[in-house]
Amino acid sequence: MRIGLDVMGGDYAPAAIVKGAIAAKEELSADDELVLFGRKSDIEKVFEQCGGANISDFTIVDCPEVIDMHDSPIKAFKVKPDSSLAVGFGYLKAGKIDTFASAGNSGAMLVGTMYSVGLAEGVLRPCLAALIPKEKEGVTVLLDVGVDTDTKPDTLYQFGLLGSLYAESTLNIKNPRVALLNIGEEEGKGNLQCKAAYQLMKDSSYNFVGNAEPREIFSDNVDVIVCDGFVGNLIMKNIEAFARSVAKRGLVDDFIKRFNYEIYGGLPLLGANKVVIIGHGVSNDKAIKSMILQSKKIYQSDIISRLSDSFKANK
Amino acid sequence: MRIGLDVMGGDYAPAAIVKGAIAAKEELSADDELVLFGRKSDIEKVFEQCGGANISDFTIVDCPEVIDMHDSPIKAFKVKPDSSLAVGFGYLKAGKIDTFASAGNSGAMLVGTMYSVGLAEGVLRPCLAALIPKEKEGVTVLLDVGVDTDTKPDTLYQFGLLGSLYAESTLNIKNPRVALLNIGEEEGKGNLQCKAAYQLMKDSSYNFVGNAEPREIFSDNVDVIVCDGFVGNLIMKNIEAFARSVAKRGLVDDFIKRFNYEIYGGLPLLGANKVVIIGHGVSNDKAIKSMILQSKKIYQSDIISRLSDSFKANK
Repeated sequence: MRIGLDVMGGDYAPAAIVKGAIAAKEELSADDELVLFGRKSDIEKVFEQCGGANISDFTIVDCPEVIDMHDSPIKAFKVKPDSSLAVGFGYLKAGKIDTFASAGNSGAMLVGTMYSVGLAEGVLRPCLAALIPKEKEGVTVLLDVGVDTDTKPDTLYQFGLLGSLYAESTLNIKNPRVALLNIGEEEGKGNLQCKAAYQLMKDSSYNFVGNAEPREIFSDNVDVIVCDGFVGNLIMKNIEAFARSVAKRGLVDDFIKRFNYEIYGGLPLLGANKVVIIGHGVSNDKAIKSMILQSKKIYQSDIISRLSDSFKANK
Repeated sequence: MRIGLDVMGGDYAPAAIVKGAIAAKEELSADDELVLFGRKSDIEKVFEQCGGANISDFTIVDCPEVIDMHDSPIKAFKVKPDSSLAVGFGYLKAGKIDTFASAGNSGAMLVGTMYSVGLAEGVLRPCLAALIPKEKEGVTVLLDVGVDTDTKPDTLYQFGLLGSLYAESTLNIKNPRVALLNIGEEEGKGNLQCKAAYQLMKDSSYNFVGNAEPREIFSDNVDVIVCDGFVGNLIMKNIEAFARSVAKRGLVDDFIKRFNYEIYGGLPLLGANKVVIIGHGVSNDKAIKSMILQSKKIYQSDIISRLSDSFKANK
């Protein structure tokens, strides 16, 4: 398969990104092609610094422009058609790469997805799914964690299906238990958005198990937790911040170690027509390596065709 | 002063509540009167079990009825006029007690407040303020954590003033730094509610310092963080759940210890015309003792008259 990577996005780009790609290459199969989008001269410099790695093992697509964090996601693709993101999404749309990942401007990643490969038929809004460690073992899929603020009830209902398919495809969970994040367990609890979403979700084809309070994120009782993108982003950041505080104080065990974002490196943009992975802005080389391996894993899980089939069946 | 306490509310009522009252009494002044609302026979039984404590040191108001967790908060006061909550709020309104606290049905506590003492003039909605431990020392005031879901922007703006007054009055923080909980620091970030609230807050008379991401809850950078009641309740429960998981695993230090809800015992309903304290449903005797001492502290902080003056000045 052909894994696309934006080398120019992220706080430590391009060095950390290229280093991550070199590290990932060692764990990929010989027939996996790593396609790097970015300034060729910048990429060559990092290879020179690293030594040992052979640049000819990678496909370099020279992109002289860079969409950075200050660019407007909407305008960036018109203003910078030769940027790594614009060219990368072009390759993804044309089928010249199978997946595309970046730790750069996540708003631009979203816009790039919408205007290139688009969403699977029937999907209202895409979303980002985070994997939060459970206390015992495994992870809870929390979605949306940052794409769709002011999420509509019918979109929340769909997030349940997206999360269910994701848990089934990539975590091998059969008939995943899907819950709605809420401030109480009983039906009728919550804000207007949740009350309306609950009514849609309880008639869904997936395994809706009702409302879940935040403690269930760390429990064994549910597999997928659905929430508004504003709420999910706050919850994810709250967990990250607390885990970091705890770890910084030397309070570390196997559970706390699993909160390291480097483990997964990037989150899939669910609902897109192709595999798009969005990484953390602060990604170091370890995180980038994980993001690349995660790209392959998600591609191989065949979630894209499963998702397309499910949404057609649910129409 | 006269501190009112509902003895019938909470998962471990009445035993834990009475025991908490007995423990608190030892730390109160001789001229502080503790007024217990509940079934007199039940209260007497707990005193007999405890031994040592003198029931005549307390004022008992016999209330044969109980509003429990299954009662509709709206209907309960009509259906059960002789309940501890109904009678307690009657005393509060009549000035026969100075504060009223309960670990029972929090919806009923809200309704009881609205229909007895009411809100200070100009306050749109009341809210609950939680105290979340900062990593170094002290606490961050987070509000609302559970009263007002689907909070309107002008209400969020007011929560900033309520939080500021609370931090000033009870935590002795001069000119508290008030922030809006958001998914990004820059102006213009967030959902529709936050974008609108930001515009109101930046023109406020209190010390608005902009948006705060969740990590700031544990930092020294802000004193008060304002959010929607649905969001705040989730964030508070998320922090509680994580802290509990961490503590349960033996990862405990001074920071983690401070997340014990027993330390404060109850949260004040800000915006009410009198001091109303809502306790955790699972309150044990230690938590109840703290809630009683907290009632006195908040009453003495004179927040009620400060609040009334501020809202008159802000009209």
